[in-house]
Amino acid sequence: MNIYGQPTRTIRWSAERGCVEVLDQTKLPHALVWADIVDLPTAEAAIRDMWVRGAPLIGVTAAYGLAMALSHDASDDGLTLAAARLRATRPTAVNLMWGLDRCLAALSPLPASERFTAGLALAEQMADEDAAQNEALGTHGLALLQALWDARAAQGATVLNILTHCNAGWLATVDWGTALAPIYKAHEAGIPLHIWVDETRPRNQGASLTARELNWHGIAHTVIADNAGGHLMQHGAVDGCIVGTDRTTANGDVCNKIGTYLKALAAFDAGIPFYVALPGPTIDWTLDDGKKIPIEARSASEVTHIQGRAPDGSLVTVQLTPDGSTAFNPGFDVTPARLVTALITERGVCPASTEGLLSLYPERRSHG
Amino acid sequence: MNIYGQPTRTIRWSAERGCVEVLDQTKLPHALVWADIVDLPTAEAAIRDMWVRGAPLIGVTAAYGLAMALSHDASDDGLTLAAARLRATRPTAVNLMWGLDRCLAALSPLPASERFTAGLALAEQMADEDAAQNEALGTHGLALLQALWDARAAQGATVLNILTHCNAGWLATVDWGTALAPIYKAHEAGIPLHIWVDETRPRNQGASLTARELNWHGIAHTVIADNAGGHLMQHGAVDGCIVGTDRTTANGDVCNKIGTYLKALAAFDAGIPFYVALPGPTIDWTLDDGKKIPIEARSASEVTHIQGRAPDGSLVTVQLTPDGSTAFNPGFDVTPARLVTALITERGVCPASTEGLLSLYPERRSHG
Repeated sequence: MNIYGQPTRTIRWSAERGCVEVLDQTKLPHALVWADIVDLPTAEAAIRDMWVRGAPLIGVTAAYGLAMALSHDASDDGLTLAAARLRATRPTAVNLMWGLDRCLAALSPLPASERFTAGLALAEQMADEDAAQNEALGTHGLALLQALWDARAAQGATVLNILTHCNAGWLATVDWGTALAPIYKAHEAGIPLHIWVDETRPRNQGASLTARELNWHGIAHTVIADNAGGHLMQHGAVDGCIVGTDRTTANGDVCNKIGTYLKALAAFDAGIPFYVALPGPTIDWTLDDGKKIPIEARSASEVTHIQGRAPDGSLVTVQLTPDGSTAFNPGFDVTPARLVTALITERGVCPASTEGLLSLYPERRSHG
Repeated sequence: MNIYGQPTRTIRWSAERGCVEVLDQTKLPHALVWADIVDLPTAEAAIRDMWVRGAPLIGVTAAYGLAMALSHDASDDGLTLAAARLRATRPTAVNLMWGLDRCLAALSPLPASERFTAGLALAEQMADEDAAQNEALGTHGLALLQALWDARAAQGATVLNILTHCNAGWLATVDWGTALAPIYKAHEAGIPLHIWVDETRPRNQGASLTARELNWHGIAHTVIADNAGGHLMQHGAVDGCIVGTDRTTANGDVCNKIGTYLKALAAFDAGIPFYVALPGPTIDWTLDDGKKIPIEARSASEVTHIQGRAPDGSLVTVQLTPDGSTAFNPGFDVTPARLVTALITERGVCPASTEGLLSLYPERRSHG
C-alpha cells in the first residue's frame, strides 16, 4: 500500500542494486528503514530477528532469501544447506516450511546455473500470488463494508467506524493485508472511514504497526487501549469489526491475537457485525473446533516490559511491574464461530460454519 | 495491609514527627517513599499531584491536610481559605467535597485554639471509619470466596483463582481496599489464593499498584495483559472475578475502570461469578441506570505514552505510537447489572438490582 503516496510492498527485488530489500519492521513505528538481503546469513537474520513478521511474508521472504543464497552457491549442497538453515530460523512457522518446500521442488531438478534466476522468478511469483490473494479478499470484504456504509449513510452517518485488533495489514503480508484489505478497498471506493485501532498489548502491534500503515496510507484512525472497545461499541461508536486470524478450524472458530475474543463478545452484545478475514490456506481442515488449538505462551517479559521512544529519540525498554511480580502471556485466543458474523476469504464471504466454509472450498468435502 | 509483614496504612499521623505521612503513590511500583504533609501547600500537593489517589483516601487526606493547615492558622479565615484551596485541588472528586464539608461542620463552631486537635482527631476518626467499612465489606465478600473455594476444593482444586481489574486495593483507600478486601480476608482465612491481575491500560494500575500490594502482602499473583482474561476464563483458569466500582446506579449497573465490561462479558459467557465490591456511599441513588453516567475522556497521552523504569533505574516516559496517530481515552465503562453476579457492600451481599440494593439500604426506599 502507500507510504505517503508511494505504492510500496514489504519486500522487493532491486535489479539495480542486485539484492532484496525488506522493510525492517523492528524499527517501526518510529523509523522507516530498509534492510538488504544479500546472502544466506542476511536472509536468516531477516526471518529470525523479525525484520519481517506475519506468516505470508515469512514464506515469501524465505523464497527470496533462498534465491540470494543461490546467487553465491547454487550447488546441490548449497541448496540443501540454505533451505535447512532458513527452516531453522523460525521452526514453528508453517508458511516458512511451505514456501521452502515449494522452492525446493521447483529448483532441485534444475541445473545449478539456472537456479538463481529461477529461484528469484519463483519468489516474485509467490509475492504476486500473496498480493493477488489478499486483494481478492479485500474486494469481497468491500461488499460487506459497502452494505454497512449504505445502511449507516441512510441513517445520516457521515463516517463509517470500523474497529480492528492487532495488525493484519500489509505489513504482515507482501501487500494489502488480510483484515485491512477490505479497509483499503473501501478507502479506494470513497467510503469515508474511521478506524479504531486496538493497541493490542502486550506487543502493541495495533499501536505501532496498524496505526503506522493507516497513517502512511492516509486513512483516518484513532488508537485506543484494548480496554476501550467495549465501551465504544455500547455507545454506537463502532459500526463493525474486522480482524484477521492465524488459524481457522473447519467449523469456523478463529484463533487470533489474544483479546480478539473479548471484542467479539462485545460486538455480539451490542449487535455489531464481527468479520474475520482469512486466506484459504490458513484454514486448518484437520481440526473440527477451536478448543483443540494449542495456545502458545510467550515470554512474560512482553508483559512486564515495553519498548518505546524516549524523549531523546532513542528506543528504550522500560519495566512496568514491580520487582518480584511475574506475568503470564498467552499469545492467542479462540473466538467461537457463534460470535463471528461472517468469514471473508479470497473466494468470497461465508457464514462461520462448516457448511459455510465448504460452500467456498467444495474440494474439501469428503466423498465417503 | 502488610508491607513485608509490617501492617501499614496509606496515610498516618506521626506524633513523634508532628506531621502526616502519606505513601507517595507516584513513586510506585518501583520505590517505597513516604511524603510529609506539614502544612496547607503540602496537603494541596498531596491531592493535586496524586501522591494519593482513590476516592476514600482523597477524602481522608483532605481532612488530615486541613488539620495540618490549622496547625499554622486556625482562625476563621484560615479555616475557610484552607478548605477552599483543598477543594480546588481535584474539583470533581466527590469524596473530597464530602470530607471537607464534614470537617467544616465540626470545626467551624469551635474556638480556634481547639481546631487543630479536633481536626486531627476527626481525620483519625474518618480514617478509622474508612478502614472499618472496608474490613466489613471484606468479611461479607469472604463468605462468597469461601463458598467458591469449598466448591472448587471438593472438585480437587488446590488453589482458588480470582481475577481483578485495576486497583481497588488498600492503596486506593486507607486500608483493606474494596475489591481486594475479600481477598485479604480470604488469605487470612487460609484459602490458597492466586490472583490474576489485569495490567489495566492505559494507566496500568493493575500492573503497578495491585501487583505491588499483593506482592508486599505475600499473596500469589500473576500480571496479565488486559487481553488475556477472556482466554483464561474459557480454559477454567479463573474461578471468579472481583472488581471495584466508582459509581453504582440504583439498578445495580456499575461504572468502573475502562475494560471492566469486557471482563464481565467473558465471565458471563463462561459461567464464572463476577462480583463487584462497593462502599454504600458510592451508590448514586439519583440515577436509575448506568447509561446516564457521563464518561470522562482522559488525556490521549496516557495511551500514546507510558512510564516505566529504564535499565539504569530512572523513570522514563516513552512514546508507543507513530507520530501523527492520535488516541482516544475513555476512563470508565458501565457494566450492566445483568452481568453482575452479586454486589458486596459493608452491609452484606445482594443481587445487582434495585430490590437487592434496597434490601441492604432500606432507608433509601421512598415512602410515597
